[in-house]
Amino acid sequence: MDLEDGLLMMPGPVPVAPRVLRAMSKPMINHRGAEFSAMYDDCCEILADVFQTKNDIFILSGSGTAAMEAAVGCTTGKDDVVVTLENGKFGERFKKIALRYGKVNPLENEWGSSFDLGEVEKKLEEGAKAITLVHNETSAGIQNPAKEIGKLAKKHDVLFIMDGVTTLGGDDVKVDEWGVDIAVVGSQKCLAAPPGLSMASVSKRAFEAMDEKESLPYYLDLKAYKKSGDKSQTPYTPAVPLFFGLQEALHIVKEEGMDARIKRHATCAEAVRAAANAMGIEMFPQLNDEFSHYSNTVTAMKAPEGVTGNDIKKDMMARGITIAGGQDHLSGKIFRIGSMGNVQPKDIILTIQELEVVLRKRGVISELGIGVGAASEVLDTLL
Amino acid sequence: MDLEDGLLMMPGPVPVAPRVLRAMSKPMINHRGAEFSAMYDDCCEILADVFQTKNDIFILSGSGTAAMEAAVGCTTGKDDVVVTLENGKFGERFKKIALRYGKVNPLENEWGSSFDLGEVEKKLEEGAKAITLVHNETSAGIQNPAKEIGKLAKKHDVLFIMDGVTTLGGDDVKVDEWGVDIAVVGSQKCLAAPPGLSMASVSKRAFEAMDEKESLPYYLDLKAYKKSGDKSQTPYTPAVPLFFGLQEALHIVKEEGMDARIKRHATCAEAVRAAANAMGIEMFPQLNDEFSHYSNTVTAMKAPEGVTGNDIKKDMMARGITIAGGQDHLSGKIFRIGSMGNVQPKDIILTIQELEVVLRKRGVISELGIGVGAASEVLDTLL
Repeated sequence: MDLEDGLLMMPGPVPVAPRVLRAMSKPMINHRGAEFSAMYDDCCEILADVFQTKNDIFILSGSGTAAMEAAVGCTTGKDDVVVTLENGKFGERFKKIALRYGKVNPLENEWGSSFDLGEVEKKLEEGAKAITLVHNETSAGIQNPAKEIGKLAKKHDVLFIMDGVTTLGGDDVKVDEWGVDIAVVGSQKCLAAPPGLSMASVSKRAFEAMDEKESLPYYLDLKAYKKSGDKSQTPYTPAVPLFFGLQEALHIVKEEGMDARIKRHATCAEAVRAAANAMGIEMFPQLNDEFSHYSNTVTAMKAPEGVTGNDIKKDMMARGITIAGGQDHLSGKIFRIGSMGNVQPKDIILTIQELEVVLRKRGVISELGIGVGAASEVLDTLL
Repeated sequence: MDLEDGLLMMPGPVPVAPRVLRAMSKPMINHRGAEFSAMYDDCCEILADVFQTKNDIFILSGSGTAAMEAAVGCTTGKDDVVVTLENGKFGERFKKIALRYGKVNPLENEWGSSFDLGEVEKKLEEGAKAITLVHNETSAGIQNPAKEIGKLAKKHDVLFIMDGVTTLGGDDVKVDEWGVDIAVVGSQKCLAAPPGLSMASVSKRAFEAMDEKESLPYYLDLKAYKKSGDKSQTPYTPAVPLFFGLQEALHIVKEEGMDARIKRHATCAEAVRAAANAMGIEMFPQLNDEFSHYSNTVTAMKAPEGVTGNDIKKDMMARGITIAGGQDHLSGKIFRIGSMGNVQPKDIILTIQELEVVLRKRGVISELGIGVGAASEVLDTLL
């Protein structure tokens, strides 16, 4: 019996509201017409609030990785050095992308361990064109110190490129206040839209860097996006049904309000941590100062002794709940519960309840209800 | 009253069948799971028949332009020369893309005029790494001689990169027989899927060229697509709802059968030409030998004296039918009627009937029914 009601508790893609799904089944429209332009403008207006920015915002028909590449590939060239901050898979991805375009001076932390701001500054002192940061390292469940990195970037006159893929739309991201030159987000994370689109805010300073470059990527040319964006258009054929879905998802964001949305995300993640703590499950991130935090959108936990993260993932899947294991060398060592998008307290409760059953069968815990009780205590603060 | 039943008769996006629209409203799935992989394989299997190829096929979350860039950007570098054949906007786009990665030796025809194969060969004799051709130049309604260019590319040991964006899925495209190293198509044209995806077939020779390159684009890295594709996956987050739509659209292609689909496309375009001819409207393309043809998927016509292509487009739009004008310097000078995707004889008849009314009001013709009669005569051969 497939009721299509399995629960996606991964760090994206996230469940999409039925009204968003319905929006995608509207008939095709001419993407060069007024109807598309109105939809484009409507999306950008709501996104300006999500990004807390006055910078230009563009919507790319491509995943978050496409927007990461657009940010790096449009601003840095073969003689430029990019300081790439890495404490997880997506920080590493920025390094890999930057290597395709120029030089990198990477700060390679153990995945999940917080950055030492002194070390970051040392890297910047060696000279750089740009610095990349993943605000929320999805692979490791750690929230990196964006505000502080922004200050350092400003001090050293370096472009600040930030992956806000799993914070924008669910966490407090102050693009202008922090001085983020390019911030990017994917559609299928906190915004709870379908996967396939990404968005980037671009500062004047970032555009100036592009003007100095000899050659930009073509499909991901942010100057072309600017030229078309000024006419409420995209330079190349947009993924129209995904725009229908995004617009509806953004209306949900607007109806909830960003303040309430941020609080809901923070509370849900805190509830997962409280449940884990009550069950004796350790957090994976190593936080070494007050500037780094556990993620507000995905919780990464160490697999308990004698059990792998993949065991837990598989057992949960059999019970209708999709969570995530670890990626690359973290495979087996950790498991991750996403709590982003339109996630509700009831989703957290059901996930923790099933997790308890799974952990008891695996001999990790002996009693049911302790995790749910702890989560419930935290979630109660939302009402 | 908006019944959402306006007719899109542009050269893409095309109307999408209700069952394709419904498919897109399925709940999200984990794109790293078995369900996605099965869908990916199913799509690739049907596409192999569409492309008439044994080469690898990849599905990119990005428009046809993304696939064009992947083809050029992955195979050619800064010291390579690409011969770009241009007789319209998309031929020009290949040139612009190639210029971002290396050198070009362009053959720049007047838009809409057929290539002289002797001139093409002269360009190749000057030495090149690759040659690009737009099989069907959508902007000008001309079908270029892919088979003959394929022969020349083989003779001169040059990679053959072909934009089949508005032929694959609607016209006879023999990727293997013609020796096309990379052929690309967009989802929203003859395949009648929603916009936002593109597909590329890649030969062994093209992969060898990639191995020789120092650096590839990242999001459009076809080697990464190959590595993931071998596991029925995509390297980065795919646009899942568009895959749902594509799979359903490809099932429609399979149910009709490619032979019938090709015949229907050819007959519908011939009907538009017959109607135009009967109404004294001239074709735009200039065909100078037997190797170039009028397009089987979009008909480009000269605007009659005293009327602009945009007038006709606007008048048609007011009557619920979206056709296309001319692009760039052809704006105003031509108008174009797309007949691609799941276009049916009745769509052609209704379009011609309204065109007659528009042209009579504009004083171009005096009698109604002549165009419809001519189209009807041709369409009757389909049954």
